[in-house]
Amino acid sequence: MIESTLISPLPAKSAKRQLVPTQQVLIDYISQIAPLSDAEIQAIIELVNVKTHQKGKLLLREGQIGNTCFFVLKGCVRQYFLVDGDEKTTHFFTEGMPVSSTFAYENKPSKFYLVCNEDCTVVEGRPEDEQAFFQAMPRMETISRVGAEMELQKSQEVLAEYITLSPEERYLNLLQTRPDLLDRVPQYQLASFLGVTPESLSRIRKRIMMK
Amino acid sequence: MIESTLISPLPAKSAKRQLVPTQQVLIDYISQIAPLSDAEIQAIIELVNVKTHQKGKLLLREGQIGNTCFFVLKGCVRQYFLVDGDEKTTHFFTEGMPVSSTFAYENKPSKFYLVCNEDCTVVEGRPEDEQAFFQAMPRMETISRVGAEMELQKSQEVLAEYITLSPEERYLNLLQTRPDLLDRVPQYQLASFLGVTPESLSRIRKRIMMK
Repeated sequence: MIESTLISPLPAKSAKRQLVPTQQVLIDYISQIAPLSDAEIQAIIELVNVKTHQKGKLLLREGQIGNTCFFVLKGCVRQYFLVDGDEKTTHFFTEGMPVSSTFAYENKPSKFYLVCNEDCTVVEGRPEDEQAFFQAMPRMETISRVGAEMELQKSQEVLAEYITLSPEERYLNLLQTRPDLLDRVPQYQLASFLGVTPESLSRIRKRIMMK
Repeated sequence: MIESTLISPLPAKSAKRQLVPTQQVLIDYISQIAPLSDAEIQAIIELVNVKTHQKGKLLLREGQIGNTCFFVLKGCVRQYFLVDGDEKTTHFFTEGMPVSSTFAYENKPSKFYLVCNEDCTVVEGRPEDEQAFFQAMPRMETISRVGAEMELQKSQEVLAEYITLSPEERYLNLLQTRPDLLDRVPQYQLASFLGVTPESLSRIRKRIMMK
């Protein structure tokens, strides 16, 4: 009898929580920084505050004091500035990307907008959520630091690419690194993000297709 | 006698370490994130690894695996990419700026160079230094996380400005936010950083002086 208990259907495995795809996005992101135990995965899933928003919902407006951080589980959040009435798109945050707002260090009004470009599922973190999270799982403090350093690295890489590449090279780079983006965002937003007019983008695309 | 001891020359204050200007740069940076006690200031000064380098010294080469982080106490570190034999300048790190290298999350070869554009005094941090630092002062883990988030914010702001501003506006922005830079770096490097030719930069400067 004792033996049969010992070899009975792996209790550890059967207790393992099955993640839905949106949860998996968050766990994959954190796991690339440090491996997580099943208990930690479960604790994270229980602690984070997940929200869904419809396409068009503004998560942050110019002038508003941003006190919430986001992490995209599903959908696309677009960052843009309003310059002389024109939207200038400066970032597309898609699945697996943290969205930096002005929350981190200064309570100054935002210069930009954050809008849900599609129906979105996001993790939302206000300062009090963050504190509770780190209190419950102190190890997440280190993981978050490494995560922030990693994002800083990526952001500086994107800036460097922007400075060193021509618009056509920027488009080719995007085609390689974020091919999904080219299909899911309107061409005028993509053109704005690449720093060209929609007409120039159209010419760039034609030239590339001819090659 | 006892009374005279109590009012004798403030021992706390006299024990306070006098910081040299380069040390002050680091302490000012950290203090903007969280106030530091005198004991913490002393511990930080003793723990960090300060190095001086002559102008022209390469801190990182393309292809090298960067495992050191820097923080500029004095001087200017320039980041550049070598594109078809031309140096494309993508960042100037001056006093009070952390220099992100490829150390944080992936041991992949660097795509860029880091060169001392002037004689430099920097804090150097290798992974083992960092670990010793956090072990000695666990609170620095939180401060470093907030610092990394703050730098991410700034980096995304610089990228957004780069995308939304014209070269002339970029120059005016630099004149406002980092006026020292315009005097201390060669014009051809500044032009490269602004994404224009040296001739265009010269025209931009003339136009601005005429206004």
